[in-house]
Amino acid sequence: MKAAISLFAPASVANISCGYDVLGLCLESVGDTMHFEKNSSGKVVLHQIDGTDLPLEPTKNVAGVAALAYLKAQGITEGCTISIKKGILPGSGIGSSAASAVGAVVGVNALFGSPLSRASLLPYALEGEAIASKARHADNIAPALLGGICLVRSTTPLETLALPCPKDLHIVVIHPQIEVKTAAARALIGNHVPLPKTIQQAANLGAFVHALHTADYSLMGRVVEDHIAEPHRKQLIPHFDTLKAAALEAGATACGISGAGPSVFALAQGNSKVQAVVEAFDKVYQTTTIQYTLHSSKINPEGVRLLS
Amino acid sequence: MKAAISLFAPASVANISCGYDVLGLCLESVGDTMHFEKNSSGKVVLHQIDGTDLPLEPTKNVAGVAALAYLKAQGITEGCTISIKKGILPGSGIGSSAASAVGAVVGVNALFGSPLSRASLLPYALEGEAIASKARHADNIAPALLGGICLVRSTTPLETLALPCPKDLHIVVIHPQIEVKTAAARALIGNHVPLPKTIQQAANLGAFVHALHTADYSLMGRVVEDHIAEPHRKQLIPHFDTLKAAALEAGATACGISGAGPSVFALAQGNSKVQAVVEAFDKVYQTTTIQYTLHSSKINPEGVRLLS
Repeated sequence: MKAAISLFAPASVANISCGYDVLGLCLESVGDTMHFEKNSSGKVVLHQIDGTDLPLEPTKNVAGVAALAYLKAQGITEGCTISIKKGILPGSGIGSSAASAVGAVVGVNALFGSPLSRASLLPYALEGEAIASKARHADNIAPALLGGICLVRSTTPLETLALPCPKDLHIVVIHPQIEVKTAAARALIGNHVPLPKTIQQAANLGAFVHALHTADYSLMGRVVEDHIAEPHRKQLIPHFDTLKAAALEAGATACGISGAGPSVFALAQGNSKVQAVVEAFDKVYQTTTIQYTLHSSKINPEGVRLLS
Repeated sequence: MKAAISLFAPASVANISCGYDVLGLCLESVGDTMHFEKNSSGKVVLHQIDGTDLPLEPTKNVAGVAALAYLKAQGITEGCTISIKKGILPGSGIGSSAASAVGAVVGVNALFGSPLSRASLLPYALEGEAIASKARHADNIAPALLGGICLVRSTTPLETLALPCPKDLHIVVIHPQIEVKTAAARALIGNHVPLPKTIQQAANLGAFVHALHTADYSLMGRVVEDHIAEPHRKQLIPHFDTLKAAALEAGATACGISGAGPSVFALAQGNSKVQAVVEAFDKVYQTTTIQYTLHSSKINPEGVRLLS
C-alpha cells in the first residue's frame, strides 16, 4: 500500500451522435491530474483544485462524493486528501465531472491496496457523476475508467460493454471556451421522441457497433448521426454547422457534438485526415473572438493512468 | 432463361424484441411455394393462391405489386403468371406478405435471366410489402430475401446489413391461428416514445449486435427485450406471459412477439434447449381451444430458395 498516489484521469467524448446517453470513448492527452494521500482525520479532504473554481466541500464535489461512496462501501475509516489539477474545464462537454469522479475512485482504491477491479469501481464513480449532471448516466465515466469505446447497456443494473476499436480510428476535439451546463443541455431535449426517430437512432447505434466490429469506416460515416440531441443542442454552439461541414469536407468520417457540448468531435481514419480536420476546425474558429483549444489523438485504450 | 421457375419463399421473424422495425431473421422450413411462368399477355396474372383468401387482382396483391414494380423498372414488357401455395397465413406475424413480395421479385427476376442481384431486388419487394402493412418497413423482406439476421439500417435510402449469426443459434416459433392485422398492431404503439425507453431500446439493439459478433448468448438474453411494442401488443396474444415464462424456464435465451404477432418466438442455443422450448410452448397451448402450429430450426442463411 502506497502512502501517495498520482494519476491522470482522461477526458472522454460521450454520445458519439448515435448513442445518446449510452456511448462514449476515451481521449488520450486531455485530462486532470490528481494526487491522493492518506490522512488520519478519517475524512475526505479536498485540499486544492487548480484550474477552475469548484467546491472544496466533499459532499458537493464530484470527486469527494465518489471517494466517499467508495470508502463507505469498503468500510474504510481512514481519511484521504485529494488535490486536483483540472485539465478539463467544467461544462466543456468532454467529461470534466466524469474524469474527477473516475480519478477519485481509482486513486482512493489504489491508495488502499486496490481491492476492487476497475470495472467494480464504476458504481462509485457514477455516484459522483450523478451530482454534476443530475442524471445517472455512465457514458463518460465508463470510457474514462476503462478506456476504449464503451456501450452502457444498462444503468440499472449497471452494465457496460467494451466495443472493439479499429486501430487507425482517431478523434479530433475542438473545445470553444464557453460553458454549457449539462443539466440545461439535457432540458432542451424533451421527454418524448417521435417513433420514427427512435427507430432511426436505434438502427444507427446497432449499425455503429457493426461498423466497429468490421472496421467499416464508410458505414460509420453514415450512421454517426444524431436524431435526438444535435437538432436541439447545436444552437448552443457557435458555428456548429460550419465546423461540421468543414470537418466532413476535410475528410472526417463523422462530426457531432461531444456530450452536451460545446465541444465538437470528429472521427477520422489515420493521421493525414486527422491533421486536415484539425486545420479545418482551426480555420473556422480563427476568425472568431472565441477562445478555443484543439486536441487530436487515437482512442485511449486504457482509461485512467496511474503515474506513481 | 427458363420458361418456368418454382421457389420457396421463407417466413421470417421481425423485430426480435430489441429491433422494432429494423431487425429480422429468416426461418428455414416455413414459407410459401411459388410458381412463375412467362405469358404473352404483357400482364402480371395471379393464377391461383392456395391456402388462404387473398385478392387475385395484381395491383391489390403484395406479390402482384412487387412483380409489377420490378417489371416496370426493368422495362420488361412480357407478362408473367404467378401461382402461390401459401404456407404462411396472412396476419400470422411471421412475414406472410414479405414472403410473397420477396418470392415475387426473385421469381420474376429468375424468369427473365436474373439481371439483378438479390440485394438489388429489395426496393421492389418493399413496394409489395408496403401495400400490406401500410408502412415501408423492410425488417421481414430483408431476411426473407437475403437470409440470416438482417439490420435495416435505413429505409430511405434502403440499406440493410447482414449481421453475423452464431452457428448454434436456433429459433422456435409458435403460431396461434388467430389473425392480428399488422396495421392494427402498429396503431397500438402510438407516435412518441418516452426518452428513457428510446435510450434503453437503442442500447439493447447495439448490445444485440455486439452479442451476435461475440456469440455471447448470456448478453443476448439480457438485451432481447422490447420497450416499444411488446407492452402494448401482448394483450393481442392469448397467454403471452405464460408462453414467455415457460420458454425462459425451459432454457430459451429470449422470448418475444414475432413481428406484429400473434406468433411468438424464442431464441435458443443448441438442439436440446430447442426441444425443451418446443415442449414448453406446446404444453401451454395444449390446454386451450386455440389451434396452433410449432416450428423450430436454425436460422436460414440463404433466404428465398429456387426449386427448379
